[in-house]
Amino acid sequence: MSGKKYSEEHKILFYETDCTRRVTVGMLVNIMMLASQDQSNELGVTVKKVKGLGFGWVITQHLIDIKRMPRIYEKVNVITEAASYNRYFCYRDFWIKSENGEELAKMHSVFVLMDQNKRKIARILPELIEPYSSDYTNKIERLPEPEKLISDEQVKTKKYQVRFMDIDSNQHVNNVHYFDWMMDALPSEFLLEHSLKKMNIKYKQEVHYGDTVESRAYIDLNDQEIKTVHQIKTEHTLCCTASCEWIPQK
Amino acid sequence: MSGKKYSEEHKILFYETDCTRRVTVGMLVNIMMLASQDQSNELGVTVKKVKGLGFGWVITQHLIDIKRMPRIYEKVNVITEAASYNRYFCYRDFWIKSENGEELAKMHSVFVLMDQNKRKIARILPELIEPYSSDYTNKIERLPEPEKLISDEQVKTKKYQVRFMDIDSNQHVNNVHYFDWMMDALPSEFLLEHSLKKMNIKYKQEVHYGDTVESRAYIDLNDQEIKTVHQIKTEHTLCCTASCEWIPQK
Repeated sequence: MSGKKYSEEHKILFYETDCTRRVTVGMLVNIMMLASQDQSNELGVTVKKVKGLGFGWVITQHLIDIKRMPRIYEKVNVITEAASYNRYFCYRDFWIKSENGEELAKMHSVFVLMDQNKRKIARILPELIEPYSSDYTNKIERLPEPEKLISDEQVKTKKYQVRFMDIDSNQHVNNVHYFDWMMDALPSEFLLEHSLKKMNIKYKQEVHYGDTVESRAYIDLNDQEIKTVHQIKTEHTLCCTASCEWIPQK
Repeated sequence: MSGKKYSEEHKILFYETDCTRRVTVGMLVNIMMLASQDQSNELGVTVKKVKGLGFGWVITQHLIDIKRMPRIYEKVNVITEAASYNRYFCYRDFWIKSENGEELAKMHSVFVLMDQNKRKIARILPELIEPYSSDYTNKIERLPEPEKLISDEQVKTKKYQVRFMDIDSNQHVNNVHYFDWMMDALPSEFLLEHSLKKMNIKYKQEVHYGDTVESRAYIDLNDQEIKTVHQIKTEHTLCCTASCEWIPQK
């Protein structure tokens, strides 16, 4: 892998944490995405440039591993690398490290280029990928799918209306809201007593301002592992799925 | 005024902005509150220390003036000063300036000390205020009240359930959510076509995890000025009121 690496410091702000004084998973992803935006700006591949060409980057999947959630006021190092790409997909890695170099979290993400007029996935434009020095590959990665939500019994549901300020400067519902919707569907006792270790989230369909989404969550205690399975649905469409692994909170 | 001044740089992060690429008012307030938390930590008046004594700081009112909302990626200077206090109230000022010293926004805020066991306002403890070198005054400031929402006609309403991640590390519903609830009750066309210039927000009663709040907003176009009036209510309680002044978006 020869993609250019980029790193930046980030001090965890109080409004990136929840009542446990740890970063929320949505904000963890935001902090990582910030590093990739800052790298892109530094390399001249700004959102404005991409938009000017009639395109936009869209995330289709994140695979997240968390060793320890960063804490309020903690200084962390965020490292990212646009590792490789093929005709349609770009693969990017992220790492969050503590001040003394301990790996706290990592993430592997899949990006596609969306043609804004056709609303269809476009072939990766050389001028938008070359600045990152990523490896071209013929292979399409076969990433694991999030587990499916099967049982309709015992599924916890909550409804949310997409708000004006949920739409970020990229004109998408910001990532953080999908995570918040998914997590908030779990009981507070569960969230207080468990730490998120792994999450596989896959985006299928965009949601828009004013849409009402239903967040559906199932807690699977049958296995030896503690798992949760999640769906975000609008009335007729499955928009986003995820599965998570947890350990008891120390 | 002799309170110690504190200033810090802040670069506007993409997740602090909305689709207009400008900071949301809730995040503007968060960015200012961050400076006061950082000052307090530097002076040893940490949240932990205040909590250890059985107290917590609670905001009762913000008066906000905005000349220009900071934009995505903009570097700003945040300045704060714990200006003065009397037996029960602390008054703090905030300024946000652009890199070349232009004042973008200011805020005057009122804090009280809450006895966590009695859930009542307590007298300001000398050890919690002395580090700031604020002026003691006998005067209680007579700040303007937010305008009252009178008309029941034409009041726009939306309901929100307080989410797990709305509760921040201070165990309160983070400020940003009150602002988001208030703003989101306005139509998107209004938010896109106007800039917020002034806001007077007063907190009356805390809301808690799981509460459903109703955000009520009235757009007053009768006057020469463009005004909005806001309420946040739980079923039986008026929790927060605000009034805003706007100008057409350039």
